Amino acid sequence: MADDRRSEDEDGLDARRVSAILAAIEADDTSALNDLLEPLHPADVADLLEQIRPDARRHLLALWSREIDGDILSEISDAIREEVITSMPPEAVAEAVRDLDTDDVVDILEDLEEPAQEAILSALDGVDRVAVEQAMSYPEYSAGRLMQREVVVAPLHWTVGEMIDHLRNTDWLPDQFYHVILVDPRMKPVAYVTLGRLLSARREVALKDIVEDSFRTIEASEPEADVAYLFNQYHLISCPVVDAAGRLVGVITIDDAMNVLDEEHQEDMLRMAGVDDEATLADTVWEATRGRALWLFVNLLTAILASLVIGLFADTIDQMVALAVLMPIVASMGGNAGTQSMTVAVRALATRDLTPRNAPRVIRREVAVGALNGAVFGLIMALVAGFWFGMPMLAVVIGLAMLLTLMAAALGGIVIPMALERAGIDPALASGPFVTTVTDVVGFFAFLGLATWVLM
Amino acid sequence: MADDRRSEDEDGLDARRVSAILAAIEADDTSALNDLLEPLHPADVADLLEQIRPDARRHLLALWSREIDGDILSEISDAIREEVITSMPPEAVAEAVRDLDTDDVVDILEDLEEPAQEAILSALDGVDRVAVEQAMSYPEYSAGRLMQREVVVAPLHWTVGEMIDHLRNTDWLPDQFYHVILVDPRMKPVAYVTLGRLLSARREVALKDIVEDSFRTIEASEPEADVAYLFNQYHLISCPVVDAAGRLVGVITIDDAMNVLDEEHQEDMLRMAGVDDEATLADTVWEATRGRALWLFVNLLTAILASLVIGLFADTIDQMVALAVLMPIVASMGGNAGTQSMTVAVRALATRDLTPRNAPRVIRREVAVGALNGAVFGLIMALVAGFWFGMPMLAVVIGLAMLLTLMAAALGGIVIPMALERAGIDPALASGPFVTTVTDVVGFFAFLGLATWVLM
Repeated sequence: MADDRRSEDEDGLDARRVSAILAAIEADDTSALNDLLEPLHPADVADLLEQIRPDARRHLLALWSREIDGDILSEISDAIREEVITSMPPEAVAEAVRDLDTDDVVDILEDLEEPAQEAILSALDGVDRVAVEQAMSYPEYSAGRLMQREVVVAPLHWTVGEMIDHLRNTDWLPDQFYHVILVDPRMKPVAYVTLGRLLSARREVALKDIVEDSFRTIEASEPEADVAYLFNQYHLISCPVVDAAGRLVGVITIDDAMNVLDEEHQEDMLRMAGVDDEATLADTVWEATRGRALWLFVNLLTAILASLVIGLFADTIDQMVALAVLMPIVASMGGNAGTQSMTVAVRALATRDLTPRNAPRVIRREVAVGALNGAVFGLIMALVAGFWFGMPMLAVVIGLAMLLTLMAAALGGIVIPMALERAGIDPALASGPFVTTVTDVVGFFAFLGLATWVLM
Repeated sequence: MADDRRSEDEDGLDARRVSAILAAIEADDTSALNDLLEPLHPADVADLLEQIRPDARRHLLALWSREIDGDILSEISDAIREEVITSMPPEAVAEAVRDLDTDDVVDILEDLEEPAQEAILSALDGVDRVAVEQAMSYPEYSAGRLMQREVVVAPLHWTVGEMIDHLRNTDWLPDQFYHVILVDPRMKPVAYVTLGRLLSARREVALKDIVEDSFRTIEASEPEADVAYLFNQYHLISCPVVDAAGRLVGVITIDDAMNVLDEEHQEDMLRMAGVDDEATLADTVWEATRGRALWLFVNLLTAILASLVIGLFADTIDQMVALAVLMPIVASMGGNAGTQSMTVAVRALATRDLTPRNAPRVIRREVAVGALNGAVFGLIMALVAGFWFGMPMLAVVIGLAMLLTLMAAALGGIVIPMALERAGIDPALASGPFVTTVTDVVGFFAFLGLATWVLM
């Protein structure tokens, strides 16, 4: 179980510690609570707040919200962050926020309501406040929102020695940095040097002689999904961010990109299943109900459409009830084959492995796969139906219907996501209903239509 | 389109470059090919090899395989790596492999057949060969396979100046390192210093005074999924790996962890859709057919089971064909609601947000969500069926059946993945068939059973 694995960490959030924390909350024992929470990593404190019952969380916040620091605030999921911040004394919020890099402050601010945003902004000192407000002026989910403004730069002509002296004499450095970015006189980034190279080179070496071979920048307006793709594709550790004129405005580090990658995956998975893509376990019954109702409603419409197809053949079913017994098998197999193709397509579009260039080949392959599996399972099902109902022509009908449906499912499963992507619609979000409609309609139509034609 | 976005990079893999490359292959023009491929990032060369048609790939390899270096080999997907390596002259393979860190060599070796493995191992010099063979002795998908053996360590008592002098006098350093690991005399890691701190501190400062607050190690035998979790949860950049006795044996960096996270997500997504979890677009028709047939077969069994339930009520359907028209709607809605709950559960298990502690609350919430959506859609469907067929009692039956089915779907969707996880079975892989069986059987049984009882 998840808890057992985590208990290996000395200071992790194991079941025993959680019980002790809940007991301390119950007993209003602030000092015991401090002893139990203090050694935890901020990410584990955030998990605790998310996992305990809402009433225990309120009680804990009443006792302990003064101790919540910026790192914990950063880790808390959007779903409960507003609740946590409003429970904190304003001066505790101010202190917590002042420790953070601008990208983390922006991440917290984004999802808050106006008054809470204002409270945080006014806690920042002038320079930080301007930096955060500038970051907030970039579109949501853009590189500009993701970057930190704190960068370590050097002019092109510096040596290793000059750089090290500069770093030693700087009061303030970002929490995390992995490269020194070399800029030209107009602040355009032109190359970077890893800290490892900087440390192992002699003082007299020129920085421009030890730059990395591979160097790229990201524009602040680019969507964060593209940022995650670039980091993953090119194994970047950090990447300078530039404005439209090519001037350095910030830097994105790999931990932020990893976070985006993780969120994108989560969204794709939830969207493909028709769940609100911001769903968390902390959602209330009402939020969760609403977040799933839309897709259920769309599914109801496609199911009714499929029923209308069945209704066309009501007379045929009336004459042969075996058709009613068998028809869900055809639709179910079609639905599953369609989902398989669709998942492969959605994934390949996300990783940019499926392009207009190789699309014709991939579509041909999918249809061939559908035909092969359709032939195999059509044959199996023909045998099953033949023995079950003792009607050879019924066996032929279900076998052929299975073949046609699985080919249609394969074709729909690959073409629909590609068409949605081309139309600028997220294929993870919208493919499912379309593919289901195709497989249901084709499945019922093929099976009942063939049955009417051959058997009646 | 994906291609348009990528064409923004000067040296990216845009459609024009791909066309030019294909033309150069066609013309057997090796020098043009060199000019076109040379400026590309290794990851883009790998993508190119994966995306072009198999015959064009063979032709390109015949012309250019001598130029393939270690970085390109690392980036190529497992599906075509064997083909690429066997097309290369042995001395080119040897040269390519010698440039790589041990973790990358291990990653390449893992998926090769015995003779190709031996060819690569014999190309390595003694020390590297031993290191790679030791790494291969760890279980597949463990931290030991993922780590690089190349580490930068320092004794606890060193100063910043001693460390920098040591780095400057070392011939060889890893391609990527972000921390200096401090070890005790028995090589147990006790803390680490970021390179940023090292660069900004004065020479006389003791390393042990500038270590990071948060420090953890990973055991070499831990599964790589846990490594990805730790990096993501605690925002690690690199993490020392220790043997069972706690001695330092290597280090894992965040780019490796990000790769694992990406692969885990891909596997979960494909498994949930019933696709072979190593499926790629480069698979042949035959491989893809086989990779999907297993799940289609399992689905066929559950669909036949559902048909048997329908068969029990054949007499009822014979008397009222409207039941045959409406019953797929109940099953389809149940299937979708079950998939929604299941996806939320599988995802929450993967991120360890769903634990035995909060399970009862989450289960209660899911069932409440199922009941609410069941009530809403039961009512809608009762109205639709009532108007469509003009039978008030049929409306009541389908409304009640919808409510029961959506509650069962919600319960099954959360309990089945949890039970599988507890039994040590991957919930992403196995939940689907069980959940579908529950929703189909309950859906048909509730609807046709109620109909038999109320209407007959």
